[in-house]
Amino acid sequence: MNAFEIYETKERVTADNAREAEHVRSELEKKDVFLVNLMSSPGAGKTTTLLRTIAALKDQYRIGVMEADVDSDTDAKTIAGTGVKVIQLHTGGSCHMDADMTRRGIERMGTDDLDVIFLENIGNLVCPAEFDTGAALKVMILSVPEGDDKPLKYPLMFKVSDCLLINKIDTAPVFDFDLEKCRERVHALNPDMPVFPVSSLHGNGIDAWTKWLHEQIESWRHEHEGH
Amino acid sequence: MNAFEIYETKERVTADNAREAEHVRSELEKKDVFLVNLMSSPGAGKTTTLLRTIAALKDQYRIGVMEADVDSDTDAKTIAGTGVKVIQLHTGGSCHMDADMTRRGIERMGTDDLDVIFLENIGNLVCPAEFDTGAALKVMILSVPEGDDKPLKYPLMFKVSDCLLINKIDTAPVFDFDLEKCRERVHALNPDMPVFPVSSLHGNGIDAWTKWLHEQIESWRHEHEGH
Repeated sequence: MNAFEIYETKERVTADNAREAEHVRSELEKKDVFLVNLMSSPGAGKTTTLLRTIAALKDQYRIGVMEADVDSDTDAKTIAGTGVKVIQLHTGGSCHMDADMTRRGIERMGTDDLDVIFLENIGNLVCPAEFDTGAALKVMILSVPEGDDKPLKYPLMFKVSDCLLINKIDTAPVFDFDLEKCRERVHALNPDMPVFPVSSLHGNGIDAWTKWLHEQIESWRHEHEGH
Repeated sequence: MNAFEIYETKERVTADNAREAEHVRSELEKKDVFLVNLMSSPGAGKTTTLLRTIAALKDQYRIGVMEADVDSDTDAKTIAGTGVKVIQLHTGGSCHMDADMTRRGIERMGTDDLDVIFLENIGNLVCPAEFDTGAALKVMILSVPEGDDKPLKYPLMFKVSDCLLINKIDTAPVFDFDLEKCRERVHALNPDMPVFPVSSLHGNGIDAWTKWLHEQIESWRHEHEGH
């Protein structure tokens, strides 16, 4: 029994993105380019995590990064410092990337000299979860200061993601963050999802995450060989 | 000169919300009900801030809270514990509240026994900034762990808000958060916006914030008296 009423205020959601996403995915398979869709709240550490991930994988793969932002180019500047190929996508107010926007970004960037593309999505736990971009892998970052209750409040993002990084893990004592409780809530939504506690700033846990990512890329490549 | 290209991937944004928002606003003025639209990223501390704000103002005003969530009713349960009137709005996947959704929420909750309504918007720094809900006051919370660069990356939210709370201020040293730099970035976008550093968990700074809010409500009431 609740002490309050629950009232549904639904809004219409756009369609046809799924088909466009499948198109993006099959084009990238043909070109042997592995696309990662990186999603989180604002300030959860997407860019810092990308810096660590690029450092770990840049000797093995030719990496490109698409930085999606409503405005600014702060993150693209940071990523450009690593020497990988970067394109800044301005979404003109849109709070997420959809498959069509992703396709146009990829076409504009070009894929001939790339093995792996990271799409740093808009900082948002809601809309990006609803829009398949055509990525081979969806990676979500939750940061400790956001709280261990976030799987309860933004369940779709946790359901659709293929793996979860719990970032800023070194601050767990400061925020009373219960890692095991969080893990349970995550696995209630997505039972087999790998969870990597990391500190992208300090480097803790990055090896386990990048080793796993490397395995995903290799097994995807193996699967699509000769297609 | 950038080391990367900037490419615009615009999406169409819906219209007519502005008119509906004006309608909501004038209806609430007639009823002498002050609506606050509370916005932030997920986990920035909207609910904890509401608890402190309700505690400070509940002897002076009859308070109602509309908890907007994509899913769950965790926050509504927490707020219901304070004894104020609460309604949970489920947005059915929508990442923001618009004026029409707000109007339906208000109608459903009823306003006869209320002086002040807090709308806890969906945790999101992008979309809620674009949709005027008809509120008399737009309050934004930025939390320290998100970083002092957020005004650069989500400028619209900082532009449209009437005041900014910087929450979890006690953790500034842990996150190298530069309050003065953040303030400068905020004021470059919105020169006169009051900024209140607070810790809603521990209570620091709450007096200054609730005193200011009380003044806003009183001056609004004075202005609309007899309309």
